[in-house]
Amino acid sequence: MKQFIDDNFLLETKTAQYLYHEYAKGMPIIDYHCHLPPAQIAEDTQFENITRVWLNGDHYKWRAMRTNGVDESYITGNKTDYEKFEQWAKTVPYTLRNPLYHWTHLELRRYFDVYDILNKDTAKKVYDQTSAKLQSPEFSVRGLLKKMNVKLVCTTDDPLDNLEYHQKVAAEGIALKMLPAFRPDSAMNADNATALKNYIDRLEQVADRNITSYQNYLDALKLRHDYFAENGCSVSDHGLEEIYADDYTDSEIESIFTKLRAGKDVSYAENRKFKSAMLHQFAVWDWEKGWTQQYHLGALRNNNSRMLQTLGPDTGWDSIGDFSQAKALSKFLNRLEQSNMLTRTILYNLNPADNEVMATMIGNFNTGTPGKVQFGSAWWFLDQKDGMIKQMNALSNMGLLSRFVGMLTDSRSFLSFPRHEYFRRLLCNLFGNEVENGELPNDINWIGNVIKDICYNNAKNYFNWQFLEEGAVKSPVTP
Amino acid sequence: MKQFIDDNFLLETKTAQYLYHEYAKGMPIIDYHCHLPPAQIAEDTQFENITRVWLNGDHYKWRAMRTNGVDESYITGNKTDYEKFEQWAKTVPYTLRNPLYHWTHLELRRYFDVYDILNKDTAKKVYDQTSAKLQSPEFSVRGLLKKMNVKLVCTTDDPLDNLEYHQKVAAEGIALKMLPAFRPDSAMNADNATALKNYIDRLEQVADRNITSYQNYLDALKLRHDYFAENGCSVSDHGLEEIYADDYTDSEIESIFTKLRAGKDVSYAENRKFKSAMLHQFAVWDWEKGWTQQYHLGALRNNNSRMLQTLGPDTGWDSIGDFSQAKALSKFLNRLEQSNMLTRTILYNLNPADNEVMATMIGNFNTGTPGKVQFGSAWWFLDQKDGMIKQMNALSNMGLLSRFVGMLTDSRSFLSFPRHEYFRRLLCNLFGNEVENGELPNDINWIGNVIKDICYNNAKNYFNWQFLEEGAVKSPVTP
Amino acid sequence: MKQFIDDNFLLETKTAQYLYHEYAKGMPIIDYHCHLPPAQIAEDTQFENITRVWLNGDHYKWRAMRTNGVDESYITGNKTDYEKFEQWAKTVPYTLRNPLYHWTHLELRRYFDVYDILNKDTAKKVYDQTSAKLQSPEFSVRGLLKKMNVKLVCTTDDPLDNLEYHQKVAAEGIALKMLPAFRPDSAMNADNATALKNYIDRLEQVADRNITSYQNYLDALKLRHDYFAENGCSVSDHGLEEIYADDYTDSEIESIFTKLRAGKDVSYAENRKFKSAMLHQFAVWDWEKGWTQQYHLGALRNNNSRMLQTLGPDTGWDSIGDFSQAKALSKFLNRLEQSNMLTRTILYNLNPADNEVMATMIGNFNTGTPGKVQFGSAWWFLDQKDGMIKQMNALSNMGLLSRFVGMLTDSRSFLSFPRHEYFRRLLCNLFGNEVENGELPNDINWIGNVIKDICYNNAKNYFNWQFLEEGAVKSPVTP
Repeated sequence: MKQFIDDNFLLETKTAQYLYHEYAKGMPIIDYHCHLPPAQIAEDTQFENITRVWLNGDHYKWRAMRTNGVDESYITGNKTDYEKFEQWAKTVPYTLRNPLYHWTHLELRRYFDVYDILNKDTAKKVYDQTSAKLQSPEFSVRGLLKKMNVKLVCTTDDPLDNLEYHQKVAAEGIALKMLPAFRPDSAMNADNATALKNYIDRLEQVADRNITSYQNYLDALKLRHDYFAENGCSVSDHGLEEIYADDYTDSEIESIFTKLRAGKDVSYAENRKFKSAMLHQFAVWDWEKGWTQQYHLGALRNNNSRMLQTLGPDTGWDSIGDFSQAKALSKFLNRLEQSNMLTRTILYNLNPADNEVMATMIGNFNTGTPGKVQFGSAWWFLDQKDGMIKQMNALSNMGLLSRFVGMLTDSRSFLSFPRHEYFRRLLCNLFGNEVENGELPNDINWIGNVIKDICYNNAKNYFNWQFLEEGAVKSPVTP
Repeated sequence: MKQFIDDNFLLETKTAQYLYHEYAKGMPIIDYHCHLPPAQIAEDTQFENITRVWLNGDHYKWRAMRTNGVDESYITGNKTDYEKFEQWAKTVPYTLRNPLYHWTHLELRRYFDVYDILNKDTAKKVYDQTSAKLQSPEFSVRGLLKKMNVKLVCTTDDPLDNLEYHQKVAAEGIALKMLPAFRPDSAMNADNATALKNYIDRLEQVADRNITSYQNYLDALKLRHDYFAENGCSVSDHGLEEIYADDYTDSEIESIFTKLRAGKDVSYAENRKFKSAMLHQFAVWDWEKGWTQQYHLGALRNNNSRMLQTLGPDTGWDSIGDFSQAKALSKFLNRLEQSNMLTRTILYNLNPADNEVMATMIGNFNTGTPGKVQFGSAWWFLDQKDGMIKQMNALSNMGLLSRFVGMLTDSRSFLSFPRHEYFRRLLCNLFGNEVENGELPNDINWIGNVIKDICYNNAKNYFNWQFLEEGAVKSPVTP
Repeated sequence: MKQFIDDNFLLETKTAQYLYHEYAKGMPIIDYHCHLPPAQIAEDTQFENITRVWLNGDHYKWRAMRTNGVDESYITGNKTDYEKFEQWAKTVPYTLRNPLYHWTHLELRRYFDVYDILNKDTAKKVYDQTSAKLQSPEFSVRGLLKKMNVKLVCTTDDPLDNLEYHQKVAAEGIALKMLPAFRPDSAMNADNATALKNYIDRLEQVADRNITSYQNYLDALKLRHDYFAENGCSVSDHGLEEIYADDYTDSEIESIFTKLRAGKDVSYAENRKFKSAMLHQFAVWDWEKGWTQQYHLGALRNNNSRMLQTLGPDTGWDSIGDFSQAKALSKFLNRLEQSNMLTRTILYNLNPADNEVMATMIGNFNTGTPGKVQFGSAWWFLDQKDGMIKQMNALSNMGLLSRFVGMLTDSRSFLSFPRHEYFRRLLCNLFGNEVENGELPNDINWIGNVIKDICYNNAKNYFNWQFLEEGAVKSPVTP
């Protein structure tokens, strides 16, 4: 009987344990895609209590609380921070077998050295202990990142963002790197003509120019792309139900843009053509600058209109879609490849039924750069043991796991970094089991180095972040 | 080497064994969705031989026999009961690794204390022994249910049904509860205009009123909904390829209904609009009465026209479809949620590729009641070890397994209740393994109570069947 | 710690080991679907070096090399055979956890008795040793097949093929049987009107008749079908994104054919109608002759136009599609079944998300012949441990594994036959585990014979290849 989350948590064999402790554990973290708030890093925010850093904004926990019957006033409402925490503590025992149960206790341990099992009986004690610790300087935002050995984070930013916080952090010259990522979803969202019109109006201000034609629009957006690059950005990101790769002509797009510029709705077909044109254009810019582009595909968002109206987006009302992905993705990537304009690309899918489609799609365009097109790490609802293992197995079976750029948090929380530990344990466990059962040769140093690559080196090289130090861990002794 | 189906069948760890024997095994059964014939319960039928209770009507076994090359005359034809049984016995060894192999031997053991492995050599002996036992009063229909500790069954009934058998059983005041469920599939099936016209004609008789408008139709159906409620019904059920949530106007529906009332075919789009309107209306009624609504989604039925013409529906010619489910389901549920008319809902899917779509969809509408929208237990072809584990894992990873209302047989046979045992063993095994490998704390009483909830208490509370006694098991001793 | 690929590779229990060594291992091989070049078998080709027999044409390895960043000149370009081999050897360590890692070392061992782990350090030695062995007569094409105990191979041939090599081999009267399979994909490919016109022109020559009507076209193709039958063919095969079963009239097809005969493009709807008509016709011919028809469904081919133009098809730019499969498949099979013209049929799917659709679809049409409609073995990207296990589990859970016709290589390489060994080990492991954990009775002879059936006897009987000897293995001793 193993103890709950002991040193060898998730590590079923001696070899897995050795691989984790000697190779994986000490590697630093590159979090190349997350939703951390740049302002809080720039300001090195100190949180008042654990509710502020742990529950506020965490829609994973919110969904669990709602499913457990907790009243919304304790979730996003006006109850006190402790009242909210207590409701979360009461919900935790109901989350057994959900990743939240592991995240919760890993995070209490790794950040706060709190080893209690969280429930209604321990709620007060845990709240007090963690909130007290949060007062000390080492529990500031940067302290929390340092504790987790995080070397670099890529935030997710709208093209209109002035990146002032990124500039501030860069100017400080601290060890932690915070880079922006270009996420132009709003710039192509023709679903909401009014919002898009307002967006273009704001872009006119930011870019200081009139936007009366599609070409104007592209020019202004390109200025923002350039601006992001000047501020260290080398990564773009897109959150889409599916890739749009419908056929279109320039004149069609011009005519569609004219309607959109006036805030008028466009037809379903026009909407798709517009998105197709924009997506292609963004990809060309990314290729021109040698960026890496990321596509997060397959979420069905804002399913609950009543709650969307009350709380806004990203508050826990999203789910997994079942869109058809393969043909459009192939067409989109092929169009770029044909003109030699396909840059490094990472594809993330939310429906695990599509894992094999993704794991084989990448192989269609992998030439030149090792691991050029990547099947991204298990994302959102899939960011758990079963989801990670399935993603790694599909990638292994249909591509090269050894070239994988590995884990990212995709999180809004500074307390999510033990997910990298979780990922690494699962990774080492897969390899360890296969060594012990004779499916891999017992060559630990070789496999250990592959693991180090997946934990850190592959990402560093793939994104060309050579300014980062080599991921060094203590030299392993012979097992 | 474990013996075949021993006491610790499917229980891989000591903890799993303890959880099953001390917590799960003794819990009574609520079978909240099945297709048992109400007449046989009312009449407390005594079966002449095992073929009558075990093979007749069991299209799972029929498919296996056909795949094994058995002639149809031994399946649905005019061979003698023993000849049919013998062919089944000969087929059993070919079903190894199919759930039928486990169901078969579990059922022989649990009902008849017959421990033989069924094959051609044991056929006669097993037939004689079981058929002899079936003569005794304790092997009547009610005896069989009592043997399995069944407290309540929900049958599946057409709105036109007069529920005489339910009334008869209720009037007897016996311990076993038999409640009807409202299944109005035929009332919205515009695929077959003639059948629908006839259905409406019959409804005119049953409701004793003319039906000449859509509103008439709804009024008459609503009377049946009321009648079902008066007879203890609090559950509806729908068997659909997909949810229909197309946009429609009242006048469109009125015009479509006029065609249908006259027995005229409607277009594909009209068909979908009609179904969309009906489905919404049924859901509103369910909400008004505080019922629970169930949707069984994704079956592709009656694929073999030749055999459909000979044998009719539900005779083993159905399979798993690959319909797109997410968007329509979201739209349908959201429309109800927006007007605060979403009642408790259970979603069952037949294609396991949709498990994650379902397991996340429920979270979009879970507010207020704990576990209000449920991802239903593995269904039909998925009602086996692999299917159940996948359903429980998806639900665990993306929702709260602890709030799950658990297993149901969905069966037409009085001998299917060991499926609850099978489910419980798998459930305990999942928990037991995770306790032993350190993925869950070693707090057996907590986990044991979660298991009791999933086996019985959650269903009792969810369906508001407070007239049932608490599910009590002997007080567990310390492990 | 087991040694890498030891005698009990993939066999986790004593029972699994016994089943493999006593029952499975000694069974001969029927490779009822492959892409081996008939000319090389007829000429009993002797390969100059391992690159020629192992790397040339193997697009699985090519994809891995490209993903690893190897330049195309070392893959399909003009580098020397050794330079190409060296790059492959350097890539091999990066393929860990990919099936290529296992295939590579199994093939080196089983054919060449080379036990080195292939990497850059061992490249030269392995190249020299294997290439030296390839000079000896026992390493000719036929020698390689004999070494693997292959009794029969079915190649994959275009209707226009004159089958001269099949005739040559048949005339020799050697023990090895090489039969053609009728693959008329090109004859119905209306996607490329010019290519289809040229195809029909060539058919005019081969069939020595004018083709000016659809009926002419069918008549000429039917002559080829007859010709294949005269040359021992009893198997057809189709490689399709999806089954086409659109409605059509004879006059529509006649009019579509007129356009196609003239090399003119047809509309999307016409294209589908034409394919639907052709597919049905082929199936009727197969039924008339008592052939077995195979459908390989779900590949998304030639995704990379740039590389297609350079290298042609089947060079490693294909992936898994996410087509909707169920309804059309049902309609297609049902149309045949309705008129009693459904012959034995094997369905292969490339997207594992469709496994359960396929595993249940077959049951809709299984009457008469045992295992008449088969869910084919894990194919292409799925031809690996995870994929094979999933296919066998889906088939087990939803059909009869015992009636499965088992493994095939689907390979272009004479060195792929250890895949049968791999499959057999996994098969025995599934059974062995379930015997040991009490999910199956401990009746080894029964299960061993089921295994022998799946390895060989089922295929022999299913395809009516009674001229093959019974698959005999040494009589097992009691475990």
